[in-house]
Amino acid sequence: MKQKFYNLQITTNGQKLYEFTDQTIKWISKYNFKNGLLNLSVQHTSASLIIQENADPDVQIDLINYFDKLFPMDNKSYIHTIEGKDDMPAHIKSALTNNQISLSVKDSKLLLGTWQGIYLFEHRLEVQKRTIIHHFIGE
Amino acid sequence: MKQKFYNLQITTNGQKLYEFTDQTIKWISKYNFKNGLLNLSVQHTSASLIIQENADPDVQIDLINYFDKLFPMDNKSYIHTIEGKDDMPAHIKSALTNNQISLSVKDSKLLLGTWQGIYLFEHRLEVQKRTIIHHFIGE
Amino acid sequence: MKQKFYNLQITTNGQKLYEFTDQTIKWISKYNFKNGLLNLSVQHTSASLIIQENADPDVQIDLINYFDKLFPMDNKSYIHTIEGKDDMPAHIKSALTNNQISLSVKDSKLLLGTWQGIYLFEHRLEVQKRTIIHHFIGE
Repeated sequence: MKQKFYNLQITTNGQKLYEFTDQTIKWISKYNFKNGLLNLSVQHTSASLIIQENADPDVQIDLINYFDKLFPMDNKSYIHTIEGKDDMPAHIKSALTNNQISLSVKDSKLLLGTWQGIYLFEHRLEVQKRTIIHHFIGE
Repeated sequence: MKQKFYNLQITTNGQKLYEFTDQTIKWISKYNFKNGLLNLSVQHTSASLIIQENADPDVQIDLINYFDKLFPMDNKSYIHTIEGKDDMPAHIKSALTNNQISLSVKDSKLLLGTWQGIYLFEHRLEVQKRTIIHHFIGE
Repeated sequence: MKQKFYNLQITTNGQKLYEFTDQTIKWISKYNFKNGLLNLSVQHTSASLIIQENADPDVQIDLINYFDKLFPMDNKSYIHTIEGKDDMPAHIKSALTNNQISLSVKDSKLLLGTWQGIYLFEHRLEVQKRTIIHHFIGE
């Protein structure tokens, strides 16, 4: 059994989807992983990991806009406001999406659909440094 | 260490929950998996994988209706409309649910609660062919 | 390869986040797990597993309140009402969050961010007994 860890750092600058599919594939290829599970986890509770379409960029714009509509910043009922108006909605968005994704690797290939990309979904407004742990277990 | 892969194909016909618990259990039994992780991933971004109650079918009807209410098709603010009115809500529903689930197998038994079933949750209106990758790692 | 299972039981008393990070860490330490995956799954469809901030308790209050606002109990359109007004919203909340989380263990340490805690998110009003399966696979 082979196990390996890697911390991918992404500096974000506002509410957007940051694709890192290529960095993940490069890492798999570098260590010549054949078959196994790749566990990705983001070490924060105001950003998410999601698999989304990487074909039409409008999908991401609509997604971000609709998230802001569903989980608005200007909600007077929030008690937790000390870290900024974007922080509480960020925690709600995080709870409703994922901090963690497990992907399968088969014959040295990351099993994603044709239009699927892996994204860090940033929910904060200011510049943030985010860590995404990569953990491979397999052979 | 034992690893095995299997692509389950499901043809969907509209927004519904399609249970595949039995197919998954049959596959585990066929290869005599004892203990390990079963990683399921759907290779699309407009359908989800969910664990839900398989007792009262009304739960699924309410779930689908409430999803349509929260993420409506007739939303004039969507930019991405080229693939039909159901496509952008489908991406939003996908982002807010799961593309991937890891389940545990112990003593040849898939560990699900008494009322839990595994479902493909289809978010598109037209007929679709969906692939759900099954990946077992264990012994 | 090492595998181990453990059923953590939590008795809940209403809609709240119940942290169990310490119990999980103690279990990892007890069996001296070094590197591997820890798969957590809740065996119910009206409670969730989430990773959230364990610093400011107001975050959890806002989260619960906002969930109740988004997925209200007094919704006349629900058909499934036989198990109480809180049951159908609980299923919807469960579908939109997670039943299952996989965490990485490295050098005997559970890889969580500084402010991250693991919680059972109870969506029912009455007292419930909940089971969270812990499954370690690694070395």
